[in-house]
Amino acid sequence: MSTEATTKVFTHQTEPFRWEEIPLLAYKEEGTHFHKITRQVLFEGGDKLGCQWRYFEISEGGHSTLEKHDHIHSVMILRGRGEALVGDEVRAIGTMDLVYVPSMTWHQFRANCNDYLGFLCLVNCDRDRPIRPTDEDLRDLRRNPKVADFIRT
Amino acid sequence: MSTEATTKVFTHQTEPFRWEEIPLLAYKEEGTHFHKITRQVLFEGGDKLGCQWRYFEISEGGHSTLEKHDHIHSVMILRGRGEALVGDEVRAIGTMDLVYVPSMTWHQFRANCNDYLGFLCLVNCDRDRPIRPTDEDLRDLRRNPKVADFIRT
Repeated sequence: MSTEATTKVFTHQTEPFRWEEIPLLAYKEEGTHFHKITRQVLFEGGDKLGCQWRYFEISEGGHSTLEKHDHIHSVMILRGRGEALVGDEVRAIGTMDLVYVPSMTWHQFRANCNDYLGFLCLVNCDRDRPIRPTDEDLRDLRRNPKVADFIRT
Repeated sequence: MSTEATTKVFTHQTEPFRWEEIPLLAYKEEGTHFHKITRQVLFEGGDKLGCQWRYFEISEGGHSTLEKHDHIHSVMILRGRGEALVGDEVRAIGTMDLVYVPSMTWHQFRANCNDYLGFLCLVNCDRDRPIRPTDEDLRDLRRNPKVADFIRT
């Protein structure tokens, strides 16, 4: 488990959706299965808080990875709008909407509405690694035309 | 630990800072040590997510309870502005600012800037009960004039 990086008590916003001393990070270390997305860790979590609280921001035309995992996501859209796939449902989402991603459920976020899609995302500090779809998973997912049209791999 | 009440995948905002099927609750069951503050539980948390994610909203002139506890708070201001005491520091806070409340640290939020003060607040699902200040604690706190002027009991 990570040490508690955020022990600074007050952290002010410096410009919209950017905060003092919180670095703008790559979404993931490597890969071509995501596009135009950044990550900021607002609260690292640790011994006395079991969750890490992050802010992800997708620029217009970008997307997060299509993936699933045992751990759960709790999400609040903070900036702009877009669409999300959760399970087999694609839904338009905008600022302040909430998204709950259950365990082992395919999900992907896209900034496909001529705007940013920025969202807060909560996860357990101690969590499993995401699983990406196999060719067979993709064949299954694409049986639903709306899902087939939405997903980016 | 609570069962997972929020298993609904998509929850849209219905009006500013209010959400579909999420009840507007009293801040606490009883007491006179808080004023003009409401609570909404955005994500209950449970087995696979160790934290509960709440939205508290203080109307103009209101305040949260002055308290401390072993568990940690991670806070993001979502609406309006006000001031917060954490430890012995009183700081002006506004939308998108972050506040980290360490373990066993006195804290209080006040909507004392002619505006709402609405904030997201993250806690472990499994947590201890808050402690309110004794008369002796209050004497100690009031040694700092800025704190003395700020706190509401």
